[in-house]
Amino acid sequence: MQIKDIHCNLYRIPLPVVLSDATHGEMPDFELITVRIITDSGMEGIGYTYTVGVGGKAVQVLINHDIRKILLGSDARGIERLWQNMWHRLHWVGRGGIVVFAISAVDVALWDLKGRLHNEPLWRLFGGKSNRVQAYVGGVDLYHPLDQLLDQTRHHITNGFRAIKMKVGRPRLHEDVARVQAMRELIGPDVMLMVDANMQWRVDEAIRAARAFSEFEVLWLEEPIVPDDVAGHVRVAREGGLPIAAGENLHSVYEFQSYLSRGCLDFPEPDLSNMGGITAWLQVAKMAQACHLPVTSHGVHDLHVHLLAAVPNGVYLEVHGFGLERFIESPLKIEDGEAVAPDRPGHGVQFDWQALAEHEVGQ
Amino acid sequence: MQIKDIHCNLYRIPLPVVLSDATHGEMPDFELITVRIITDSGMEGIGYTYTVGVGGKAVQVLINHDIRKILLGSDARGIERLWQNMWHRLHWVGRGGIVVFAISAVDVALWDLKGRLHNEPLWRLFGGKSNRVQAYVGGVDLYHPLDQLLDQTRHHITNGFRAIKMKVGRPRLHEDVARVQAMRELIGPDVMLMVDANMQWRVDEAIRAARAFSEFEVLWLEEPIVPDDVAGHVRVAREGGLPIAAGENLHSVYEFQSYLSRGCLDFPEPDLSNMGGITAWLQVAKMAQACHLPVTSHGVHDLHVHLLAAVPNGVYLEVHGFGLERFIESPLKIEDGEAVAPDRPGHGVQFDWQALAEHEVGQ
Repeated sequence: MQIKDIHCNLYRIPLPVVLSDATHGEMPDFELITVRIITDSGMEGIGYTYTVGVGGKAVQVLINHDIRKILLGSDARGIERLWQNMWHRLHWVGRGGIVVFAISAVDVALWDLKGRLHNEPLWRLFGGKSNRVQAYVGGVDLYHPLDQLLDQTRHHITNGFRAIKMKVGRPRLHEDVARVQAMRELIGPDVMLMVDANMQWRVDEAIRAARAFSEFEVLWLEEPIVPDDVAGHVRVAREGGLPIAAGENLHSVYEFQSYLSRGCLDFPEPDLSNMGGITAWLQVAKMAQACHLPVTSHGVHDLHVHLLAAVPNGVYLEVHGFGLERFIESPLKIEDGEAVAPDRPGHGVQFDWQALAEHEVGQ
Repeated sequence: MQIKDIHCNLYRIPLPVVLSDATHGEMPDFELITVRIITDSGMEGIGYTYTVGVGGKAVQVLINHDIRKILLGSDARGIERLWQNMWHRLHWVGRGGIVVFAISAVDVALWDLKGRLHNEPLWRLFGGKSNRVQAYVGGVDLYHPLDQLLDQTRHHITNGFRAIKMKVGRPRLHEDVARVQAMRELIGPDVMLMVDANMQWRVDEAIRAARAFSEFEVLWLEEPIVPDDVAGHVRVAREGGLPIAAGENLHSVYEFQSYLSRGCLDFPEPDLSNMGGITAWLQVAKMAQACHLPVTSHGVHDLHVHLLAAVPNGVYLEVHGFGLERFIESPLKIEDGEAVAPDRPGHGVQFDWQALAEHEVGQ
């Protein structure tokens, strides 16, 4: 089953609300990069990745210009071999960043193809027993007034969510503490509460914040500091005393291995769309399992729902807020706070290509 | 002095001889990406980076499509601020890879501009006392028969080189040992000899090889294993007993920091064209100095000659074999094994744009 053609398209999609954070500046839109892999037998697999607004065109060019040459004519069924081939041939400009976004989108298309070939949804292909996964939800709510934060949370609880994430990293720690306390009082002791600092702090600030939050039973503290500082994470984990989550900015299995081997990551959160696709996500899940750790996810919930349903250590699917569901024909179902992986073959994501067309960026 | 325009061009340049290695496959050519930054005062700075044949178009697109928007209208003199701005705005798809190649080329153009503004060559702008740097040379000679390796080395010695690098990593260690021994016998005890394994080995193989080479006074063992395995480098350094060199595959100052803080890198070899430009190279040089270590270089010798001449801990400029001198009007001078940094303002590299034109890749 040879790869006969690869099509890669780029879309710039307005966000429902303009997001902003300290690192990336204002984000009025995100970029969606789709990949269609077509075999000589006429089968097709769909993959995709996204950016926070920059670099998408480089991902597209890399797939159309370089990866295309590497893959055409290869057997689409040997995914790990193709993955290694891409990694090594692109190694000089790779090991992370744009190259890994491109590999990720291609890898998803190859797994979709394999699911369709076996006429199985991915969650069952990977051995899952049930297609239901506990989900959590949050907002980019650091600058919401407290009332708005609590209203948003009441809405989530009413919709059945039993796990909520909030942003922290306000200018003064006492503001964060007051907001975390108000959230815990609102949701009571039985709903899980996670906090996410989006890399805003220095190590000393993160330790101080972790200690201050500990009385409110926070499930995890996410991205307290920049991803490049593994030794800093060791300090925050040891001295802060809260479980640490991170992953959306770790872009290879080796970065996860480095964290796991130092014992400073309690909830690995690989985002398969930027760390090597399903192949790499499953590898991190297995590493975590061998470390007696759970694995969770970031972004692209329509894909991660299959994987978290399949692996024995999967917990808490992040329901991501980029609004991609407007362009998906059968978006992810959430019932009583649980996400339901579809029974369609492959990942089952069917894009509404017509709705996407008006957002396409020309080549 | 505002940035008014940025032009980025891509060239595919045939190598004098087709190179090959285990990681990248056959390399019949390399890609050169040039950047011209033009200010509202009509000044111009030139930067460039290169790839081993893949990913160049993505680098070009990133500069023309994303970095252009970040830089236009900014003051060209605040280089570190612009560097941080690029790093943070491109962080989601960055922290290495294509993004850092793009930042590197832009950063070189900004420093060239600054040198021209002050009418100083970079080596003097950075405080160098002399413009001469000891150089070393090597070949991609792993599969050369021994006679050819020795002939090539006699040629280098005749040309005045007093430091030579050879490839190791043959199928059997005894072959490497015999070749290293023959080289040491040829060059005598006073010429420096370095060996380069290009990431070919496992940790156990690297340790065994390092021990076997130690009687031949090898100055450094370069890239014994893959760059992702810092803990592996610690073992090779401790158990192998040879000084370790690495850097061409480390693509951020944080990767160098991680190695230096673990004490497993004796000769850091940052390649400014792929780890963040002159700004990042100088940062690594300063880190190395604070660790009582030298700094050396990889690739783009026309640029590194300025930096190694300027910093107090600079040693051994690598004379790189991609043949870019065919397209540079005044290529690097080597006299008695020493490279001579030019006295032209900025980096002083003047491309032969006409000769390059026939190799340009259309947008």
